[in-house]
Amino acid sequence: MSRLLLRQLPGRVLARALPTHAGRTYSSSSPVAQFTWEDPLGSKNLLTEEELAVSETAERYCQERLLPRVLQAYRDEHYDPKILLEMGELGLLGATIKGYGCAGVSNVAGALITRAVERVDSGYRSGMSVQSSLVMGAIHDFGSEELKEKYLPELAKGRLIGAFGLTEPNHGSDPGSMEAVAREHPQKKGYYLLNGSKTWITNSPIADVLVVWAKLQETGKIRGFLVDRKQCPAGTLETPAIKNKTGLRASITGMIHLQDCPVPKENLFPEVEGLKGPFTCLNSARYGIALGVIGALEDCIKRARAYALERKQFKGNPLAKYQLIQKKLADAATDAAYGTLAAIQVGRLKDQGKATPEMISMIKRQNCDRVLYNARILQEIFGGNAVSDEYMIGRHVANLYVTQTYEGQSDIHSLILGRAITGIQAFV
Amino acid sequence: MSRLLLRQLPGRVLARALPTHAGRTYSSSSPVAQFTWEDPLGSKNLLTEEELAVSETAERYCQERLLPRVLQAYRDEHYDPKILLEMGELGLLGATIKGYGCAGVSNVAGALITRAVERVDSGYRSGMSVQSSLVMGAIHDFGSEELKEKYLPELAKGRLIGAFGLTEPNHGSDPGSMEAVAREHPQKKGYYLLNGSKTWITNSPIADVLVVWAKLQETGKIRGFLVDRKQCPAGTLETPAIKNKTGLRASITGMIHLQDCPVPKENLFPEVEGLKGPFTCLNSARYGIALGVIGALEDCIKRARAYALERKQFKGNPLAKYQLIQKKLADAATDAAYGTLAAIQVGRLKDQGKATPEMISMIKRQNCDRVLYNARILQEIFGGNAVSDEYMIGRHVANLYVTQTYEGQSDIHSLILGRAITGIQAFV
Amino acid sequence: MSRLLLRQLPGRVLARALPTHAGRTYSSSSPVAQFTWEDPLGSKNLLTEEELAVSETAERYCQERLLPRVLQAYRDEHYDPKILLEMGELGLLGATIKGYGCAGVSNVAGALITRAVERVDSGYRSGMSVQSSLVMGAIHDFGSEELKEKYLPELAKGRLIGAFGLTEPNHGSDPGSMEAVAREHPQKKGYYLLNGSKTWITNSPIADVLVVWAKLQETGKIRGFLVDRKQCPAGTLETPAIKNKTGLRASITGMIHLQDCPVPKENLFPEVEGLKGPFTCLNSARYGIALGVIGALEDCIKRARAYALERKQFKGNPLAKYQLIQKKLADAATDAAYGTLAAIQVGRLKDQGKATPEMISMIKRQNCDRVLYNARILQEIFGGNAVSDEYMIGRHVANLYVTQTYEGQSDIHSLILGRAITGIQAFV
Amino acid sequence: MSRLLLRQLPGRVLARALPTHAGRTYSSSSPVAQFTWEDPLGSKNLLTEEELAVSETAERYCQERLLPRVLQAYRDEHYDPKILLEMGELGLLGATIKGYGCAGVSNVAGALITRAVERVDSGYRSGMSVQSSLVMGAIHDFGSEELKEKYLPELAKGRLIGAFGLTEPNHGSDPGSMEAVAREHPQKKGYYLLNGSKTWITNSPIADVLVVWAKLQETGKIRGFLVDRKQCPAGTLETPAIKNKTGLRASITGMIHLQDCPVPKENLFPEVEGLKGPFTCLNSARYGIALGVIGALEDCIKRARAYALERKQFKGNPLAKYQLIQKKLADAATDAAYGTLAAIQVGRLKDQGKATPEMISMIKRQNCDRVLYNARILQEIFGGNAVSDEYMIGRHVANLYVTQTYEGQSDIHSLILGRAITGIQAFV
Repeated sequence: MSRLLLRQLPGRVLARALPTHAGRTYSSSSPVAQFTWEDPLGSKNLLTEEELAVSETAERYCQERLLPRVLQAYRDEHYDPKILLEMGELGLLGATIKGYGCAGVSNVAGALITRAVERVDSGYRSGMSVQSSLVMGAIHDFGSEELKEKYLPELAKGRLIGAFGLTEPNHGSDPGSMEAVAREHPQKKGYYLLNGSKTWITNSPIADVLVVWAKLQETGKIRGFLVDRKQCPAGTLETPAIKNKTGLRASITGMIHLQDCPVPKENLFPEVEGLKGPFTCLNSARYGIALGVIGALEDCIKRARAYALERKQFKGNPLAKYQLIQKKLADAATDAAYGTLAAIQVGRLKDQGKATPEMISMIKRQNCDRVLYNARILQEIFGGNAVSDEYMIGRHVANLYVTQTYEGQSDIHSLILGRAITGIQAFV
Repeated sequence: MSRLLLRQLPGRVLARALPTHAGRTYSSSSPVAQFTWEDPLGSKNLLTEEELAVSETAERYCQERLLPRVLQAYRDEHYDPKILLEMGELGLLGATIKGYGCAGVSNVAGALITRAVERVDSGYRSGMSVQSSLVMGAIHDFGSEELKEKYLPELAKGRLIGAFGLTEPNHGSDPGSMEAVAREHPQKKGYYLLNGSKTWITNSPIADVLVVWAKLQETGKIRGFLVDRKQCPAGTLETPAIKNKTGLRASITGMIHLQDCPVPKENLFPEVEGLKGPFTCLNSARYGIALGVIGALEDCIKRARAYALERKQFKGNPLAKYQLIQKKLADAATDAAYGTLAAIQVGRLKDQGKATPEMISMIKRQNCDRVLYNARILQEIFGGNAVSDEYMIGRHVANLYVTQTYEGQSDIHSLILGRAITGIQAFV
Repeated sequence: MSRLLLRQLPGRVLARALPTHAGRTYSSSSPVAQFTWEDPLGSKNLLTEEELAVSETAERYCQERLLPRVLQAYRDEHYDPKILLEMGELGLLGATIKGYGCAGVSNVAGALITRAVERVDSGYRSGMSVQSSLVMGAIHDFGSEELKEKYLPELAKGRLIGAFGLTEPNHGSDPGSMEAVAREHPQKKGYYLLNGSKTWITNSPIADVLVVWAKLQETGKIRGFLVDRKQCPAGTLETPAIKNKTGLRASITGMIHLQDCPVPKENLFPEVEGLKGPFTCLNSARYGIALGVIGALEDCIKRARAYALERKQFKGNPLAKYQLIQKKLADAATDAAYGTLAAIQVGRLKDQGKATPEMISMIKRQNCDRVLYNARILQEIFGGNAVSDEYMIGRHVANLYVTQTYEGQSDIHSLILGRAITGIQAFV
Repeated sequence: MSRLLLRQLPGRVLARALPTHAGRTYSSSSPVAQFTWEDPLGSKNLLTEEELAVSETAERYCQERLLPRVLQAYRDEHYDPKILLEMGELGLLGATIKGYGCAGVSNVAGALITRAVERVDSGYRSGMSVQSSLVMGAIHDFGSEELKEKYLPELAKGRLIGAFGLTEPNHGSDPGSMEAVAREHPQKKGYYLLNGSKTWITNSPIADVLVVWAKLQETGKIRGFLVDRKQCPAGTLETPAIKNKTGLRASITGMIHLQDCPVPKENLFPEVEGLKGPFTCLNSARYGIALGVIGALEDCIKRARAYALERKQFKGNPLAKYQLIQKKLADAATDAAYGTLAAIQVGRLKDQGKATPEMISMIKRQNCDRVLYNARILQEIFGGNAVSDEYMIGRHVANLYVTQTYEGQSDIHSLILGRAITGIQAFV
């Protein structure tokens, strides 16, 4: 998909009238100095024409197509796989990859897509991040040319769904201790046998393609395998869903159980060894999260502001007139603005090959922490009404707790940063 | 029910073996100086024998009978009305009321019951608080002798279920602006006609007896009415449930719609006028919440501690060995201990007639705020696993948000305190 | 000094008119339920007549005699040793010790004295704490009967000044690694020779009696020595002052340098060995700090409240009318009230022999942390005016930082608590 | 002074060897991806060659010439007016002004200068900000061409010292209520008579040129006057110093008392009327503060990091190995990095005429708040040693409190932002 196509598609897809989400506009920044609460520090000024277009496409799709179904999906703990097809059609999957049917946009543009999706729901964004950054990213960065040509275009279109199997039940923050193992198939030449369990795997129950990290028995080193579900004999791959989640209920999460699952040797990622492989993918996903969560916070701000303006208490004053309310909004808007700038800066450095994992730890940690903090504070503006899921903010709050803990819990990133600053590691 | 009965009952009800909840003991404090993380500042030392016995009875019931059903109830958004029957049988309802079949225990003892219930779930505690403090309290404090004799014993046994209708859709924190109204029945002598809507009413869909606050048309003053559902003609009282809540899902919440609902004049609370009536009840309920939420925090501490001791990361160290984890536990234990002492102190003053509404604002606000804060921080210890509802802490976190906002949102209590401190009101 | 004397003294000392510190009253709590911002949770209700009398005596002395000189003393970094004489005259030194000319009051009464002094200045309280808890406490708990009789009465009267030498330059939070050493005097029989350096020692430059902890060379165990300055040959004891402090400037602080300083063997504390000795004394001092710092916070509240009521901005409204200001006051008053109750509770347990070091860690840490936090927030009410030292609050803020760090820095107490809660130590 | 000169000067002034401040380097960012704790998000990448050169010049001067004298200056509450001469010589004063002997650099470059100065001391930066942003800025933006030509070159060289008189004793955050007044001179034609008092005026006791804002009696509108001290008859202008400050002691602060002070009409700023004048200047100063305070925080980080690496406790581990310490450093580094990016962004918008006052409110508030918060947290790393002023961090903490309150106290900026976000003002 060319960039042109990416920009044309909205016209086709979005033939209906624009949504009436008060306060959201898609116009580019005005030449006159003006403060807008949606973008307090003028971050749009930093974006290219192309990035603005990508953002607009993604925002329209999300507001028009995702927003109307999220409430019910979250209640039912249901994820509609058609979403990935729709995203694929718009070129939103694996968008930063060049070639293989992908849009090849900048890292910032890629993150603007995650922000648009997460403005609706962090679960929807998670499903997309896994597909784009973890699965397509892994195949693109580490797969053989054959694997890339076979899988990337289909994943880009959303016709195949991917999952990324790294975390194990007993090793959440410490993947180096993983127990999953791959050994030479004793009978079938050219095959490995995979055994092990992965948990908290987004998309796993519906995934066609699973990138699985396991220790190669002969070397003890971690390697990456592409497990294609339709190549797995019955009983060798099970991917039960995890239900009754307290957050991210609009995404689907499950386990991966591999029992003597045969995987052809050409599905081994040829070069990468150790944690470098999964960490590269995670890094990329984390970058997307860092700007993504800002979308969720911006939605909370928009909703809390609208509620505060509309809701009247005591002598008919809107809540928005109260100092304690205004401070909550000011704090949240500030953190959203700061987080946006930091994420754009790291995206620019990433495009230039100058971004380091520590930078991404910093913005992933800070943005997730601050977004969660502020979402909770904004929730207070709704008082008891926030208990009704129709005000949407309770869902964001529940989701954002998860974003703070996955792909590097906040404290772990603190220690990564602490090590980078002091040169001493303190994981004990 | 005499106090004696209260202490005997456990034997009957709790004939089975004691629960095996690791870490919880019911023994009284040791004579030797010893630090226990469950009661860091030795608050048990402040309790009477009777209070310890009441607490023990309540804790056993809650751990044995409530805990096993809460997970499913919360998932299904289901409240089992039998719970009130069981509580009634143990003398736990309206326990501070003297006479009318109530136990007549101290205010501290009453709050120890709420703590026991909230250790399991804030929703269960809410259901009980409404019955005890709001409904039975209102009837006891403001009802005629006839109303007391007719309703209190049945409510105390849980054979009747009560609801308390104060909050209206557009006047959450400002009940003085309520729109519900009562006027003389134009035809039926000795009756009022009630009209209006109430929302976020715990127990309303299953309530037999509804205390409803409305403005008497002739005076414009707020008055209290006891609405007995079985006296209401069809179509005059509707109590639809509010579903899809983001917290307190193990309690049942609804609206109250009154349309020309006839209420006999003897069901009017004779003396009280204005906000004094509902505020007296709320004050009493708030006092119970102040110690109640500590139970929820203590449960979070217990679970987080157990998880931190069991879960190993990096070189096989338990999470409990990490400084960042230990600080979370220390902070939470401190706030639990402080909140407990403050609640006991106010209970003692309440027993002596020296507690003021501002004191209760202070402990309700502070305890709810700190409990919510700490529960969220403790949740981080579970990392991604907290997303599974089986770890229980996500449920507490979601519940505790509600406790912070109902019966006086935290900011409102700040302004009540600010007014008491400065003599100036700032509600604008 | 008998209790009677303690209560009579004010009459003698305080012959002048009562101070006119607006808002401070010394009356006991009213029988009618009433909220007072100076004691929001009615802690006075918990005090005995004697404790109220001790508190009143101390408060009067401090407000009348200490308050007028603190501003200049702080500016000049000057400590007037006459203060200890005055305190001694009133029976405020070593007041919890029974016998030896001490008042023998309860632990709570002792802490009420520290609160009164710290209401004026943490530095003044530090000077007194060292004398009472560290020096007199050490001699009382661990000294021989001869030492007690020789030193305690003079210290109680403030005719001798004490210092407590534990902390060394390189071992702030880890006294177990101390380098000070005592060995048998090679020539002079019945004497030890002390060598080593101590730093951050309150009162050291003016001390007559220095309790010094050092390792006994023959055993390697820490032992306590009473160093009497007038017994020290020239050049063997140097106690230079540390100047240009950023806090506690109204107290005097210095180092202790011991160079072959001969100490008679009878000045060795006979029984105690290891860290138990100094830790017992510190525990006692920390208890006093826990309630003491509340005095400083209460003074900040009083001053901030008065300023907010008097200072007008925008349309002539006093600052006190602003929600953001009221919240600061409400938060501070809450923490003061909670901290007071916790300290009283631990004092009661201490009187009963049921207080543990962890309890004291908890209240020392929490009260110092919260007091510092709130003092800083209250300072904001003064805006730029707080830069003038005449508003007093800047001095409290600077002082309170020190109280948070000395006698166990806050983080260290977190880890002590973490260890008590988890059973695992994490000092690494 | 041309830009060239600005870059050449260092060679001349800084003929001595480079300082040995460990960890500080002046090299531009490396082409290889690398995380440096001094600039975690690669902000240098955003600077032009010229800006890097300006920054380097300023940093060298500050580290070599200002740092060695700040400790004593702060102790003595002494400001050396030669500092402005030295800064003037290097082209650091009024550097963003084009013409009139000023360097004409970008707004970002101007802020890099404030950051360099504030890395040493906020008081030194305050003295410079007043000269550059408030006084030179006011004359440049609002003065007649004659005033500009007469005063700007001398102010730029530091041969004249300026002060800015806006704040009055009773109207700190509300200058619109000012009482200073100017009326036609009853006798002397072409003159106004100024009366009124200003307080907390940086540089006032040593100022040659005072920009004073007062209400013109005939219109009641606020106007700006340039008061030239040498034109003032004796007794008409008094500028007593305010001593015993608790922060910013290395700057000089005072009052301005005007008593029938005659000012020639040509010293009235001709065009500007109302608060637009002073607010424009303040806006510019606030922008400088927003990046300036980051310098102070970076210095705290550097010093805390060095201390943590050097100081050993428990088993010989450096403090830097402790998780609780690492988190403090990680938090501070994150806020410094985010604050830097936000300030650069607003500077770029300012250069393009797109920055609004609300943007500057946002970054002034957030950066001052976060810097103060983190400086205090980093201070904890020093434990009791921070009480010694030689560790420098206590001074930063005391200074930064003032930066949070002046030029718009934090809460006031919250309400400015709240108004911008909601459209409703809440100053009451």
